[in-house]
Amino acid sequence: MTTTEPLSFLESTFRSIYPQDFEFRQRAEERLNQLTMPHWALGDLMDLAVDLAGMTRSMQPPVARKKVVVMVGDHGVAVEGVSRYPAEVTTQMVHNFIRGGAGINVLARQAGAEVCIVDVGGRDDFAELVREGSIIAKKIGRGTANMVYGPAMTRTHAVMAVEAGIEVANSLAADVDVLATGDMGIGNTTPSTAIAAVFTGKKVAELTGRGTGIDDACLANKIAVIEKALVRNKPNAKDGLDVLAKVGGFEIGAIAGLIIGAAANRKPVVVDGFISTAGAMIACRLEPFVRDYLICAHRSSEPGHTALLEVLKQRPLLDLNLRLGEGTGAALAMHLVDAAVAILTGMTTFAEAGVSGAY
Amino acid sequence: MTTTEPLSFLESTFRSIYPQDFEFRQRAEERLNQLTMPHWALGDLMDLAVDLAGMTRSMQPPVARKKVVVMVGDHGVAVEGVSRYPAEVTTQMVHNFIRGGAGINVLARQAGAEVCIVDVGGRDDFAELVREGSIIAKKIGRGTANMVYGPAMTRTHAVMAVEAGIEVANSLAADVDVLATGDMGIGNTTPSTAIAAVFTGKKVAELTGRGTGIDDACLANKIAVIEKALVRNKPNAKDGLDVLAKVGGFEIGAIAGLIIGAAANRKPVVVDGFISTAGAMIACRLEPFVRDYLICAHRSSEPGHTALLEVLKQRPLLDLNLRLGEGTGAALAMHLVDAAVAILTGMTTFAEAGVSGAY
Repeated sequence: MTTTEPLSFLESTFRSIYPQDFEFRQRAEERLNQLTMPHWALGDLMDLAVDLAGMTRSMQPPVARKKVVVMVGDHGVAVEGVSRYPAEVTTQMVHNFIRGGAGINVLARQAGAEVCIVDVGGRDDFAELVREGSIIAKKIGRGTANMVYGPAMTRTHAVMAVEAGIEVANSLAADVDVLATGDMGIGNTTPSTAIAAVFTGKKVAELTGRGTGIDDACLANKIAVIEKALVRNKPNAKDGLDVLAKVGGFEIGAIAGLIIGAAANRKPVVVDGFISTAGAMIACRLEPFVRDYLICAHRSSEPGHTALLEVLKQRPLLDLNLRLGEGTGAALAMHLVDAAVAILTGMTTFAEAGVSGAY
Repeated sequence: MTTTEPLSFLESTFRSIYPQDFEFRQRAEERLNQLTMPHWALGDLMDLAVDLAGMTRSMQPPVARKKVVVMVGDHGVAVEGVSRYPAEVTTQMVHNFIRGGAGINVLARQAGAEVCIVDVGGRDDFAELVREGSIIAKKIGRGTANMVYGPAMTRTHAVMAVEAGIEVANSLAADVDVLATGDMGIGNTTPSTAIAAVFTGKKVAELTGRGTGIDDACLANKIAVIEKALVRNKPNAKDGLDVLAKVGGFEIGAIAGLIIGAAANRKPVVVDGFISTAGAMIACRLEPFVRDYLICAHRSSEPGHTALLEVLKQRPLLDLNLRLGEGTGAALAMHLVDAAVAILTGMTTFAEAGVSGAY
């Protein structure tokens, strides 16, 4: 990690990100138009197939090797009573991930994806898990500071969190075709909602959801906490690192980095729900071409998520009232990624099949 | 096939259909509430898991063996210029299905589902395909009559079409865990829209879509054709067989039968898009308990489909602007069926994982 010249690693990564390849997009579209079905009758899957061809510069976009990367971080703001769960649950869930019993394990397995866990900001050391090599250790800090009283992290730590994500993407790139983002961090819908407020300009009350399932009183408190943090920190919406540092989280920064790293390696990256989309928003603010590599998996039931998707001009693939995080929605969307490639590569054309075209 | 006493076979089938099992629904819900995630955080997938437990009377709902049944029929009304494709395409596409190059082949393969093709009403004989055993022969007629000038089929033929679907479900039941519906029949959004008009009471103009991609003039003609057929035939919305006979299609009747047969065999049935939902509507009108076995796969871009889903009080799993039919949306939804079962059976509980519960 380049801690002496942090910006130069980021900048050189940004410079290696190019938009989707127009020629491959066009070739994919031409082929899809010849397949035995009415024009664009497989709708969004065909749009996705064109995107995948453009991202991977291939008419056979490689998608077999899939990896869901779950970024872990704790949040100082959790002491404000914004979640129904105690902060220890972050650590407990990491152990659950390693034992394979969590939602993401089950859904990734079913989608043929591997799961890897990265500690960027857990309160816990995870010493044993690091020693046995079952998690990737990229710790920037033991949880963020409480953003109600000042920035969640320093700008240097924000850079380091993003760099950590890029490094993970770079280290996985040779063996992975499609990356997906996931998160674990009790309290993290609170910073994500703050980020949504900064980038959408909407009122906190309109954007704040019930996260893990809080009641009305707790929701009112959560809104007040986020408003206080925004007033105290005044994040600059034009500066992604400033927003991340002041009202973000280590795992959100690392998710932004993973997405940036995926784009730099020309790999599609399936973006999970609200927390991951907050990371994607930071990533796109840092380098707008990143948007060309996003596959937004689903629309979560958190209102801030829909607001962020609108700003990013993304229509998610699924809408199943999911609000678990961990990368679970991204794992489900992997099936549609496979389906899109199967259509592009597996169907016959009108000419090959001897089927009459339209009048 | 019991052609001498057609109603008795239908009636005895209806009598063997029971609602979902309440106890298994409750047991599934209890288990899901103990799994390591916030309350109902996997949303619609958890609802689906409860449904699957209730349908199959099992806490390990069997879903491994999947079959998409594509019902084939031609339509007399096709001569009215309601489609962009000539009627020969029905036959050509059946050959495409058998060779494995169509959308349904590709998407079923990817979902681990087999495809079987049933001729209930194609204009073609499919003599060679029947001889070589590559399609199931249940032909009721060589295409329906043109419903603009009278009923699409006799009431006896309507009963036979439904019976054909039940027979297919019965013959597959021993070797299949989950059935899915598909359709092939040039012109079949026209009868499906007529059926939607009958059961929703909405205006034809509000329900009629572009099907295979017709232009404005063709759309206006399609609306006029459907209105004429409704005025000419006056289908009785309280009588599912009357609606099927007057403005339906052979494949729509067979889809209704497949769904009824699935319910009678306590098998979940994944209902594809607009044409399949028209079949499901007929099935539910004939025997309302059938509704407990439906899994509605997706919302197609045909406006009549959304209207029918509302009447059936079904929220589809996917919304991907699909309008191909063939069972393609149902094949995609199979992944979510697998995911729902994986959640119910594969995740650990808070107690097992040593994860703290909510405050």
